[in-house]
Amino acid sequence: MQNAVLITIGDEILSGNTVDTNSNFIATELKNIGIRVVQILTISDEIEIIKNTLKFAFELGDLVITTGGLGPTRDDKTKKAIADFFNDEIALDDTTFEHLKAYMEKRGRIEILERNREQAFVPTKSTVFQNHFGTAPCMMMEENGKIVFCLPGVPYEVKPLIKDQIIPYLKEKFSLNYLTTRIVSVVGIPESILADMIEDWELALPAHISLSYLPVGTRVKLRITASGENETILLQQLEDQIQKLLPIIKPNVIATSEDKIAKILAEILGEKKLTLSTAESCTGGELARMITSNPGSSSYFLGGIIPYDTQKKIDILKVKKETVSQYTVVSEEVASEMASGCQNLFKTDISLSTTGVAGPGKGEDGKDIGLVYYSIKVGDKTHTSKLFMPHLERLDFMHFVSQKVIQDLVSILIS
Amino acid sequence: MQNAVLITIGDEILSGNTVDTNSNFIATELKNIGIRVVQILTISDEIEIIKNTLKFAFELGDLVITTGGLGPTRDDKTKKAIADFFNDEIALDDTTFEHLKAYMEKRGRIEILERNREQAFVPTKSTVFQNHFGTAPCMMMEENGKIVFCLPGVPYEVKPLIKDQIIPYLKEKFSLNYLTTRIVSVVGIPESILADMIEDWELALPAHISLSYLPVGTRVKLRITASGENETILLQQLEDQIQKLLPIIKPNVIATSEDKIAKILAEILGEKKLTLSTAESCTGGELARMITSNPGSSSYFLGGIIPYDTQKKIDILKVKKETVSQYTVVSEEVASEMASGCQNLFKTDISLSTTGVAGPGKGEDGKDIGLVYYSIKVGDKTHTSKLFMPHLERLDFMHFVSQKVIQDLVSILIS
Repeated sequence: MQNAVLITIGDEILSGNTVDTNSNFIATELKNIGIRVVQILTISDEIEIIKNTLKFAFELGDLVITTGGLGPTRDDKTKKAIADFFNDEIALDDTTFEHLKAYMEKRGRIEILERNREQAFVPTKSTVFQNHFGTAPCMMMEENGKIVFCLPGVPYEVKPLIKDQIIPYLKEKFSLNYLTTRIVSVVGIPESILADMIEDWELALPAHISLSYLPVGTRVKLRITASGENETILLQQLEDQIQKLLPIIKPNVIATSEDKIAKILAEILGEKKLTLSTAESCTGGELARMITSNPGSSSYFLGGIIPYDTQKKIDILKVKKETVSQYTVVSEEVASEMASGCQNLFKTDISLSTTGVAGPGKGEDGKDIGLVYYSIKVGDKTHTSKLFMPHLERLDFMHFVSQKVIQDLVSILIS
Repeated sequence: MQNAVLITIGDEILSGNTVDTNSNFIATELKNIGIRVVQILTISDEIEIIKNTLKFAFELGDLVITTGGLGPTRDDKTKKAIADFFNDEIALDDTTFEHLKAYMEKRGRIEILERNREQAFVPTKSTVFQNHFGTAPCMMMEENGKIVFCLPGVPYEVKPLIKDQIIPYLKEKFSLNYLTTRIVSVVGIPESILADMIEDWELALPAHISLSYLPVGTRVKLRITASGENETILLQQLEDQIQKLLPIIKPNVIATSEDKIAKILAEILGEKKLTLSTAESCTGGELARMITSNPGSSSYFLGGIIPYDTQKKIDILKVKKETVSQYTVVSEEVASEMASGCQNLFKTDISLSTTGVAGPGKGEDGKDIGLVYYSIKVGDKTHTSKLFMPHLERLDFMHFVSQKVIQDLVSILIS
């Protein structure tokens, strides 16, 4: 298998200001064509460091992809470092300059600044992949079988460059081994117990099939990967292994292919032709966001409401005032009434509700941070559960709870 | 300034399955106590690679923090590598085992598996920082002024370990230079033009004050960092620089301290004592999620609705059926009626609405992917705008639009 190294250039990652999502995207795309990322190096935007890191990276793999360090501002030095590394010079590339001018004119910027013109300067030996969503071109340098692609750092620019230009280029250039993956999603068993349960199965896997554990919230994803020359055979081999695995843990498996929980839910709702709505308090929109992150969700997700203020729960969702005063707003009873109100408001088969204390401040009734009640109403049956996650930061908490609610709904629907 | 290197261990990052959010968190926490992360190395969970990377990392800095590779499963090899690196052995640590047993018993797991017991084995020379949110302990090794902390990879476990134990430990151990940062948020000027406008100011910055550009959506964040011995003086120096900067770009500056857009909004709403609600279609909950990500948002955010299905826009938000049939659901007119309906439903001073096509499929009326109309209603004045972002992936699109809506609201409120 081809090995690749990713280099992320820029102080905004090192200083903690920005989360590096590019590497994740690029690694996934490369994996899909059978190229394995062996290291990701995040470095400072300094010429000597970039050159040293390139040298180190080429010891690990023949393909290097850099992101970042190509902006029009004074603190970007990547281009110079790359040219130096390959004993090359930087010069104005006419095609790139024309592309840049057209790009900027299309956006109403008639006057091209010197700073922008500088972006059309590229190493003379480089092949340029034009950037249709930004002003920094992508450059490829190749020497003695070593290839480096230099991309800008903005994710919106990186994604189309990788997907539409670099992946097709690499696919054609190399004849690669196929790499196929299946994900088995397991709920209700802690990772260590699961590992014990399936140990014999794992040890019996052939050498070209590997297993890894990915805990996500309260779910464990088993990723089973096979590499080889014939895709059809690999797919069959993975299916065979999963058929051997299932008898051991079947009641705890919620999916054997798709790994995104929103997609798993979508498939089941589509099959059963059920509609869904949400009423969120402590998850603040995250539950709906997760559900609607799935393309096509409009066919089963009719709507959601976030009655953040207690009075809105009463006014819009018809939660009884007495229920709130008797049990407080963070209670099993309110969660349950919210789910009923939501089902009535949106007229759906299923409704989900959450009420809890995301923190960092205590709930209005002094309820503890991290306490949540959530209801899942399917037809006229309501399932209400309690969660207590006191150690999560606010956004993590919102995400964790939403994931658990969807996961529980899936478990209910397939049981 | 103290230099640190982060090492992320595990194939789940390299394979693109998981986004590395730990490094971002740790880098931010370290920066706040004046420790600079100089590189982040993401590597495979193999003993030789871990040892080589540790060696390389200690050439760059005296402090190394590793995350990942400590799980109870067969594919984790970090502990062995660390012990090898320091010529140490692994042995059962009684205190850690007692902590582990108590941790598991608290969670109702009376029987401790061999696999779990293995987690209480640590290098004999290590200092253990107990993990209160998981089963893998954090280990610190120190030799000749070189320090390494080995943490598990689960973010929920990493955050409290770093915040509650490691940062206080490091703070006490080193007497560090102060590092202070101010973020100036600029809207409505592209990065390259902004750079030209403030070039003279930038070049005149003293050596201990540095500037970097962080484009986020349609906003550019200018991060100005000063390092030195006296925090009060540094803060004053940053304030002085910002006062010099403001006359150049004042109309485009929406904030000079806080950089999270939800927080900037919170401060303005708090000051003006205004309440807010949202009606989202194409952003699917992301707008509310961004707003409620801010602690204390319940004091101004009364609620949100996601009338995903067109009929729900009509039924609940009282969007006119004729408006939908005349202009289609993705239109200026529907956005505007959604904002009015939202304001009425939640009885707030301000309401926000979005309607658009997130893709990848075309809108129901054949409207183009990436097209959005959004309305901002403040009192009885409605501002409706159009955005066209055809190249974004679904979640990115939802986020980008939400960011722009909040940013525009901030601009309206401070103008």
